Amino acid sequence: MPRWQSSSWSEPARRIALVLQYWGPAFHGWQRQCNAPSVQAELEHAITALEPPGTTVRSCAAGRTDRGVHAAGQVAHFDSCGSIPGHRWAAALNGRLPHTIRVLASRELPGHWHACHSAVYRRYRYTIYNGCQPNLFLAPLSWHRYRTLLDAELMASCLRELHGHHELDAFQKAGSGRPDGWTTVRDTVVQRQGDLLVIEVECSGFLYGMMRLLVGQLVALGEGVISADDFRRCWRERRRDDVKEAAPPQGLCLLRVGYRTELFERCAWYDCLPWLRLVVPNPPAHQARFGRRCSP
Amino acid sequence: MPRWQSSSWSEPARRIALVLQYWGPAFHGWQRQCNAPSVQAELEHAITALEPPGTTVRSCAAGRTDRGVHAAGQVAHFDSCGSIPGHRWAAALNGRLPHTIRVLASRELPGHWHACHSAVYRRYRYTIYNGCQPNLFLAPLSWHRYRTLLDAELMASCLRELHGHHELDAFQKAGSGRPDGWTTVRDTVVQRQGDLLVIEVECSGFLYGMMRLLVGQLVALGEGVISADDFRRCWRERRRDDVKEAAPPQGLCLLRVGYRTELFERCAWYDCLPWLRLVVPNPPAHQARFGRRCSP
Repeated sequence: MPRWQSSSWSEPARRIALVLQYWGPAFHGWQRQCNAPSVQAELEHAITALEPPGTTVRSCAAGRTDRGVHAAGQVAHFDSCGSIPGHRWAAALNGRLPHTIRVLASRELPGHWHACHSAVYRRYRYTIYNGCQPNLFLAPLSWHRYRTLLDAELMASCLRELHGHHELDAFQKAGSGRPDGWTTVRDTVVQRQGDLLVIEVECSGFLYGMMRLLVGQLVALGEGVISADDFRRCWRERRRDDVKEAAPPQGLCLLRVGYRTELFERCAWYDCLPWLRLVVPNPPAHQARFGRRCSP
Repeated sequence: MPRWQSSSWSEPARRIALVLQYWGPAFHGWQRQCNAPSVQAELEHAITALEPPGTTVRSCAAGRTDRGVHAAGQVAHFDSCGSIPGHRWAAALNGRLPHTIRVLASRELPGHWHACHSAVYRRYRYTIYNGCQPNLFLAPLSWHRYRTLLDAELMASCLRELHGHHELDAFQKAGSGRPDGWTTVRDTVVQRQGDLLVIEVECSGFLYGMMRLLVGQLVALGEGVISADDFRRCWRERRRDDVKEAAPPQGLCLLRVGYRTELFERCAWYDCLPWLRLVVPNPPAHQARFGRRCSP
């Protein structure tokens, strides 16, 4: 029996923080559900098996991702009554979790630290595949929009106007328990590499369903369905009804969560979602290809 | 009813060529099996449904990939007795195939053209994830070797010695029907990008199980288990018993098949497997990390 299992069970609870990856389509989101698989339920089940008998485990995550949304660097915490050292929890849990959840790192933190309340920012990445060809390697990680060449520059400039402290309820799904829609957008990226378009948004906090509604509206803008003025008016005048489409979940990934100090080794939490790149040395002329409608 | 469905069924058979992607773990390889799913069986089932009643369809691929091996640009052909035009087969088949197989392009070719016999080369890519952290986004597309930092330069230089026409039975699995082990290695690549290592080999033809045995031996070399002299002696003296380990299938992908002339639009067959890249702006010092053993 390893040394850490032989010590007494009567120690005070210790707060353990985890960095987690999970495969979105395997779960109905982070939050525990009655009759559907959730990351929280799987995690708490694995933790319970490693805790002293009879312990009730409750975990808390920095961002409650929706059904089907991936996470590359989610952060969560729980209180342990056992004696497994903080840094050993990652390997211990990976031995018990399904392969659709991986713990990248773990450590002990003071009891007042909180995965959600102590977080300074969350950063999400949304990947759009804007090529004509079907591509099954991209399908589980992106939204395939193939009818129109998206105007990435227009999308980038309109998204940049969101920087700062704003009330963004236009991008909030019904059913949120939040008292208001204020949030601070810290950074945005719209980057095209060939047929792939990556949108990243870093916020103090995300409203319920915000990233998928925002991407849906940005795509309408990039495809020319709405104008830059329509886009501005929509969020500035908080017109939720003007946002017609939410982007599907498989393109979305919770990339990382930031705290006042870096809690984990950089390699454990920084961009653990691989960048995808399609190499076509003589890239086809987009305009010509999109001139005719193409079917995937 | 579209025009091409209304013409007569009595036309002579036309040879149709396809570029295909498939998700390796969903199949027991390309070739039709008695009691296991295969790409060939799925494809022929979908084609049969689009052909005149009673037609027997037989398809032939450029490379017979093993169980679990991915394909990004496999090429296959079949003879059609119906009247669907060559370029319409891609969309027609995608509507009937499972999502684990996609047809990227299709066209009609002369009856003497053969997907396998007319091919000039095949190119495979093998991806190794050489980082300490587990990463579930990389797991289905790579081999996770985390105990030792692989010596990519040594692997590249020893692999380069294979260029040219050689008898490579050292890298041939038992059970091959081939009369000899001669093949021409046209190009090789070993490229490290952070924790990811990509090995590409382009050959006139691959022996049975060749790429996985070759990568297994290269990894033994890169990890210091065998020396450069051992590696050389093994293939030059055709010592099959010296090759101890075959690399697992999920890291392998049939990237493309080359013909004397380019048959399809470049975007349909060139590097349709996305490149993966892990962005860690301050990459951790490998030597320090690999100094201690790490568990995923």
